[in-house]
Formats: sequence, structure tokens, C-alpha cells
Amino acid sequence: MSFYSDIFADYNCFATAEGLLGAGMENVKVTYDMFFREIPDKGGFAVMAGLEQLIERLQNIKFDKDAIEDLKSKGFSDKLLEYLENFKFRCDVYAMPEGTPVFPNEPIVKVHGPAIQAQFIETILLNTINHQTLIATKANRIVRAASGRQVIEMGARRAQGLDAAIDGARAAYIGGFNATTLYPAYKKYGIPVATMMSHGWVQLFESEIDAFKVYLEEHGENGMLLVDTYDTLDSGVKNAIRAFNEVLVPQGLRPAGIIIDSGDMTYLSKRARRMLDEAGFPDCDIYASNSLDEILIKDMLNQGAKIDGFVVGEKLITSASSPVLDGVYKLCETEKNGDKIPAIMVSNNVNKITTPCSKRVWRLFDMDTGKAIADVLTTEDENIDNEKTYSLFDPDFTWKRKTVDNFVAREMLVTVFRKGECVYTVPSLEEVCSYCNEQVSSLWEEVVRFENPHRYYVDFSGKLWGIKQSLIEKIMHQNDVIGEN
Amino acid sequence: MSFYSDIFADYNCFATAEGLLGAGMENVKVTYDMFFREIPDKGGFAVMAGLEQLIERLQNIKFDKDAIEDLKSKGFSDKLLEYLENFKFRCDVYAMPEGTPVFPNEPIVKVHGPAIQAQFIETILLNTINHQTLIATKANRIVRAASGRQVIEMGARRAQGLDAAIDGARAAYIGGFNATTLYPAYKKYGIPVATMMSHGWVQLFESEIDAFKVYLEEHGENGMLLVDTYDTLDSGVKNAIRAFNEVLVPQGLRPAGIIIDSGDMTYLSKRARRMLDEAGFPDCDIYASNSLDEILIKDMLNQGAKIDGFVVGEKLITSASSPVLDGVYKLCETEKNGDKIPAIMVSNNVNKITTPCSKRVWRLFDMDTGKAIADVLTTEDENIDNEKTYSLFDPDFTWKRKTVDNFVAREMLVTVFRKGECVYTVPSLEEVCSYCNEQVSSLWEEVVRFENPHRYYVDFSGKLWGIKQSLIEKIMHQNDVIGEN
Repeated sequence: MSFYSDIFADYNCFATAEGLLGAGMENVKVTYDMFFREIPDKGGFAVMAGLEQLIERLQNIKFDKDAIEDLKSKGFSDKLLEYLENFKFRCDVYAMPEGTPVFPNEPIVKVHGPAIQAQFIETILLNTINHQTLIATKANRIVRAASGRQVIEMGARRAQGLDAAIDGARAAYIGGFNATTLYPAYKKYGIPVATMMSHGWVQLFESEIDAFKVYLEEHGENGMLLVDTYDTLDSGVKNAIRAFNEVLVPQGLRPAGIIIDSGDMTYLSKRARRMLDEAGFPDCDIYASNSLDEILIKDMLNQGAKIDGFVVGEKLITSASSPVLDGVYKLCETEKNGDKIPAIMVSNNVNKITTPCSKRVWRLFDMDTGKAIADVLTTEDENIDNEKTYSLFDPDFTWKRKTVDNFVAREMLVTVFRKGECVYTVPSLEEVCSYCNEQVSSLWEEVVRFENPHRYYVDFSGKLWGIKQSLIEKIMHQNDVIGEN
Repeated sequence: MSFYSDIFADYNCFATAEGLLGAGMENVKVTYDMFFREIPDKGGFAVMAGLEQLIERLQNIKFDKDAIEDLKSKGFSDKLLEYLENFKFRCDVYAMPEGTPVFPNEPIVKVHGPAIQAQFIETILLNTINHQTLIATKANRIVRAASGRQVIEMGARRAQGLDAAIDGARAAYIGGFNATTLYPAYKKYGIPVATMMSHGWVQLFESEIDAFKVYLEEHGENGMLLVDTYDTLDSGVKNAIRAFNEVLVPQGLRPAGIIIDSGDMTYLSKRARRMLDEAGFPDCDIYASNSLDEILIKDMLNQGAKIDGFVVGEKLITSASSPVLDGVYKLCETEKNGDKIPAIMVSNNVNKITTPCSKRVWRLFDMDTGKAIADVLTTEDENIDNEKTYSLFDPDFTWKRKTVDNFVAREMLVTVFRKGECVYTVPSLEEVCSYCNEQVSSLWEEVVRFENPHRYYVDFSGKLWGIKQSLIEKIMHQNDVIGEN
């Protein structure tokens, strides 16, 4: 558990809690959705991640004496302090499983419970899911660019803090990375760990050849040699070949690989490949590092770079070209005397208008191809029947309709907490990785491509659309009336 | 202390430690520099931050039974395990104090000690300093754009993990922010904490006016009202004025402010200002939020936006427009039989060539203006004498020279650890903030501006330059020889 995860909340969550207690509204039942509006890097989908940590953190919310004393000194009411002292999480939580491809404007986490609690968890929920989903999404892009080559995460030195590095390595693994270089990420999550030679190692020796030979004597067939400390081709690759011949060959061992960390890596890799082949090491892999991302990797491979693996650092671990997932947490329903009242926020920015009601999310898969056709949001009391045809319906451009049949509709939100008790069997990280891989394969390649991907459909049921429209019109009408006064 | 900070290292640090022990080189004395190459956002300087956390983390390195067992299972040598079990930090560490403006290619942290330890701390050192320096630098830009208006940090929901949010809030405060909304950042670091109304609060009530009135009854003169849940001008501002009149005025209280979180905030702020003034609330502040950064803030103010304070979230806490500080940690000197041997890395990328020798960093301040003239790197045995003239010398463009007199030379690296013991009195966060403010004022405005800032001089002594040149030439010559074979 991370330090301060027990009280990780914006201050307004305490103020709102106090206000709700003061107004006797603490147990009003509400539903919140977490959703995001834009896919990082203008991609076609994001990859859900962070749920396991969210579960731990929600189970861990507590206010010890120290926090209570502190809040008391800030002038919070006795009523609030007493509530926090006896805090027990009591919400229902539903979420997309980790590894699921997710899309804008659909709930990826849904929280139902007493207003005082549901509002309180906003900060920790958003932080946890926004962060890991961002990195898993970026990782999956990089993995796709590398088309089957090894991809190793090495971002800790420039990550935005310690758990950005550790949890980021986890998210990268979900997105399809093969390994991390960060020891605590292996220790905490069991992610395969790789070791990379440093320039410092080479510099500690009087000559590069000495550094390489000692390293291979230690690491044998697992020792990858970093060849760019002095001059990649004229010194590094030549010395690597010499060291392979002098240390490994006599023992009957084969070399693991070399790493190039600077210079024109497309050109250098081709030259190095030829040198290694000619020296009798066609099986020696060439790895590249140095500020790589999916765009550079794709470009290098398009130019015929002879690279077998990529070590990816800061551009992955910060999602540098798109470093924010804009997930928000918005009230969508309240209950009054047992009646459910849909809630909406109507902003001057039309893309900030929220979708009311506690919702179900369905994904329709084509029975023949197995491909995902569309997601559909419905109200809680609606069902989608696999046996019938279903009429899809674009919530923004309502003339866009499509009738589908021969599909399977799967509900995407799974129950994670019921009245504060975790009822979800958290899958292993390996299971999450395969699930992610399998689910990304269920998307049409038009959705998966980097450039101008097809916008995947997230449609509404007719009923949900109707409720939203009538709420918007009601509020607009209220404002007209206010405007006349 | 953050979870896993005790063993936060890339796996190669363990492998190198084992290799050094195996080769009997563990106590070879070495010196490493941390420096960065590029200033985020193409700015003129960065703001050093994170030293206090680095000190804590270096003091906290330990390998408990669990870690030892685990490393054993990975096949590490008994010699390494024994070393780690008895690990005691024994390095000397020198660093720029937090809040110092820092520049590319100068040491901002310097570590001297046994090779096995100095190399081991690379990952935690870089992570800690890169992260907080990045955020303090961005924060200082935003604070300068806001020209004296209040600036509040509210990035936790989209920060890259929990300590990205907490330590990021700290770095933002060093950079000049006035407050944070994140409770644990206040709790851990004592940063002033602010509360912001949420859309959820407004939506929980049957009408906006009810939500506002209950909020003002709770918060009185401290209650800022969020006015964009339905319609900023036609509903939000009107209801705010009504709530001020009905709740605050009868009690003789004045309103704190309103917050606009969407729409064209320049336009809306001007309209809202007029409405508030006409209603008798010229003292009611207008705050703006919604994906702000220094560029947007400057633009809004240039267009005459009537905004008294800014709430800044994800663009600050991730430094979104430039989310990486590229700090590296490179060997610059080794010792052999008491002799100091300068170390260099000569890359195919010329900007990756390092500067050898354990160095001192001097900042020369003009006696008349108090302004910083240049930084000068020298070897350890050199001094800069305030009483004499000094000839500045550009290491890249050597014909660029300038003779200065009437200056004070200040050594910038302070001693933090001596043989593993912390000998540095960590200043309070408030002291760091004033120091930062004062030191940024010592820079010429040409260095401080956003667009094409003047490149501040980081010069070499003639001696240091000579050592570097002769090392490069020696290595180039070696490669020629290898090339001939």
C-alpha cells in the first residue's frame, strides 16, 4: 500500500462530507460514473488498468487519530470527525476489468452508495485509474509498433515519482510489454525483470574490452553489451565481437545481444547486423534504446532497421506525447424516497454535458467474426437480447442508425464491491495480459490503427437518449425563465 | 516514506554491484554527476527540487530479509547478499539547494564514494530529482504568467500516481503556488490547503440556488461558488448573486468568490465581473479553472480577462507540454591508487558527450545589480577569487570570451552527506519558497522570459576545458588505431 493512500482526497471531499452531514443528506443514495472524454494520442481506444490498486485503496481508507486530530484543528464539525472515525466503506462499485479496451463517454467505473462516501472517493479513484489506464494505453501502442519484437520498460529514472514508476511498469506489462528493468516492480508485481548494462560499468574499466569481458564472464549467455560508450561501430561492436569470441565461444556459449543507446540507430543497426553476421553471430540480437516511442519505432522499422528488441523509457512511463488521461467522476443519479432521479451537468462546452442515469454498458460482438461491433449504454432496467435484432443509434448524429443481428451482447461492467465488500476475484496479472491481448484483437483494425482511427461506436438506447434530451431541454427552459426575470 | 523507496533501483544496479564485488572493485572510489541536458518547455532555467526527499530516501536504503531471500532466489552471489544485508550508506553527496535556478550540463547533484554504492543510487536519485525539478520548473512558469494573482494546485485526479500528486504539490509550492487542494499534501508537507466546490455538490440539490445557499451557510466568507454546472451567466452567476444577498449580506459578510470551470473564460469573466459589480459585489473574486497552463493564462490576461486567481490541474501536475526532465547520472572520475582519473563518455551524439572530473560549480553575481552573470565549472583544486577579474569562456564556442570584475562568486553545491552521514540542515519549505523567489529574481529578465530566452552561460575553467578536449582526442585516436586493425 502506498503512503497516504488511506486519506488521499481533495480537501473539498471533506468539506462536502461535512456539508452533507450538516444538511442531513449523508445517506442520500447516489450513482457516479467515471468516464474519460478523449483517447490519448488521438488513438482509437484506451486500455483499462489500475482496478486492482483501486480495490486495495478503497479497502484501505481509514482515518487514524492523527488525521482526526488534524481535521479537528482545521475546524471540521464533531459530526464529521465522528463519522470519519467510524468510517466503513459501504458503496457498490462496478468496473471494466483490467485489460479491456475502453472508449470515451462510457462508464468505466460506476459507484453507487451513500452520497457522503461516493463523493469522498473521487480523488483516489480518478488518480488510480487515470494513471494506469494512460500508461497501459501508451504501452499497447508501443507494443503494436514493435510488431512482435521484445519490448522492455526502463522508465523509472524519469517517471513522475516512485509509484509512477512501479505502477507504471505494471500498466506497461498489461499493455503488452515483456519485462521491466525496475526491481521493485518485479518484487511487488512479479513482472519479469531484465538487466541492462550501464555506461558507468564500461567507464569503470580501463578499456571497453575489459569491461565487456568481465561482464560476459559474470553474465554468460544473458549478458547484453552496451556498445555506444565511446564509438558504436569502431569501438563498441568490434569489442563486443572480440569479447564474444574470447569469453563465450570457448565455453560453447552464444551471445545474448548488444544495445545501441545513441546515434542514428537505423543506420547503426544495419551496420552492426552486418558486422555481427560476418563475425559468425547472426543469432546475436540487437536492441535499441534512447527516447523511443511508437512513432520512432514504426519509422525505424519502416526504414529496415535491424532491431530485435526495444528498451523504452520516459516516453512510455510518462506517456510523453499525451501525458494525461482526462477521466472525470460525475454524478448521474440520485434517489429520493426510493425514486431514482437522473442527474445531469449541462456545460457551456457541449462536450462536457454528462449522460444521466445509472447505466449498463453492453458490448456487441459479431458471431461470425468475433469482432466488437459497438458499445451500447442503456438504463438499468433495459436488456439487450442476443436473439433479436438491435437498432444502433448514434447519440450525437441521430440519423446514423444501423440494425444488427447475429451478435452476442456482453455486459462490460463487473461487480467489484457490494455494500463495501469486495466480491470480485481479482485475476492474476498474467490473466489480465492475455485478456488484454485477446480483447484488443476483437477490435477492427480500423479502430486499432494510429492515424485517424475509426471512431468506435458508443451508442445509447432510445430510452436513455430520450431521458438525456428531455433533461437538457428542461434545464434550458428553466434558464429561459430565469433570463426573463 | 514512500513504499518500496528502500529498494528502488533498476535491476542492473544489483548486477553491477555483484560484478564489482566479483572483480574486487567494490571500493574503487568514483564520482558521479547528475545533470540534465534540456530545460523543459524550452525555458531559460529549471528550478531545483526534491532534495529533502532524496535525503530521506538515501537514509532509508535497506535490504530486509524478504528482499535478501528474493535476490538469493534470483541467483545473486552470497557475496552480494552479505554486502546488502550489512548495507550502510557511505557516500559524500553534494547538491544544489532546493529552489535554486539550475541550468543544463552543470552538476546539480554530485556523489563521491565507493563505486558499488555510488552506482546503486542512480535510479532513486534521478527519479526523485527529475520529478520534483520538472514540476517546480513548470509551476514557476505558471506563477510568472499569473503575475501576482493567486494560483492553486489541483492536479491529484490526473497526476501520474499518488506521490506524483503529493510530491508534485510540494514542488509546485516551491515554484511559487499559493496552495493545494490535496489534503495529504497539506498533511505531509504543511502546504496551505484550499477547498473547491464540486459539480457534484450542486447536482445533489434540487436546484442550484439551494446548493449555493446551503454551501454559503456552511462556509460563509470562505465559500467559493462553482457557477458553471448548468449555465454560467444565466444561471450560475445570477444564483450566486442571489445567494450572496440572501445568506451573506444579512450577516454582514462579504463573498469570497466564484469559480468558472468551462466555456470561454475570458468572455465569461468579463460578463461575470460586470454582473457582480452591478450587484454590489466588486470585492467578489473570480477564479478560473479548466486545463490551464502558463500559455493560456498569459493569453487570457492579455485579452483582459477579469480573473483574480487560477486553479491549475493536470497541465501543471504532469508538466503536460513537456512532461520529462532528462536528467542523467554519469561517472566523471575514478580513483586508482590515490590518483584521480577523469572519466568521459564520448557518444556519436555530440550533445551526449559528458564532462570529466569531479567539479565545483560557481555562480558569479554582479556586485552592482545583484544579477547572476554566469555559472562556471572548475576542477576541485581551482578557486575563483572575487578580488580579481575572471575570464569567462564558452566551452562550445571558444572564441566567445568575456572578462568580468566586480563580482561575487558563490559555490553552488552544498555538502549534504559526508561519508553517508547527513550534515545538511534541511531548510523549511517556507525558506525554500522565499529562496526560490529571491534566486529567480537574480536572473536577467532575458533569461526568464518564455519565448526564446537568452541561454544563460555555463562556462568551463580553462583547465577543465583542456582536460575534456585531451580526453576526447585520446579516445578518437584510440578508435583510429582500432579502425586500422
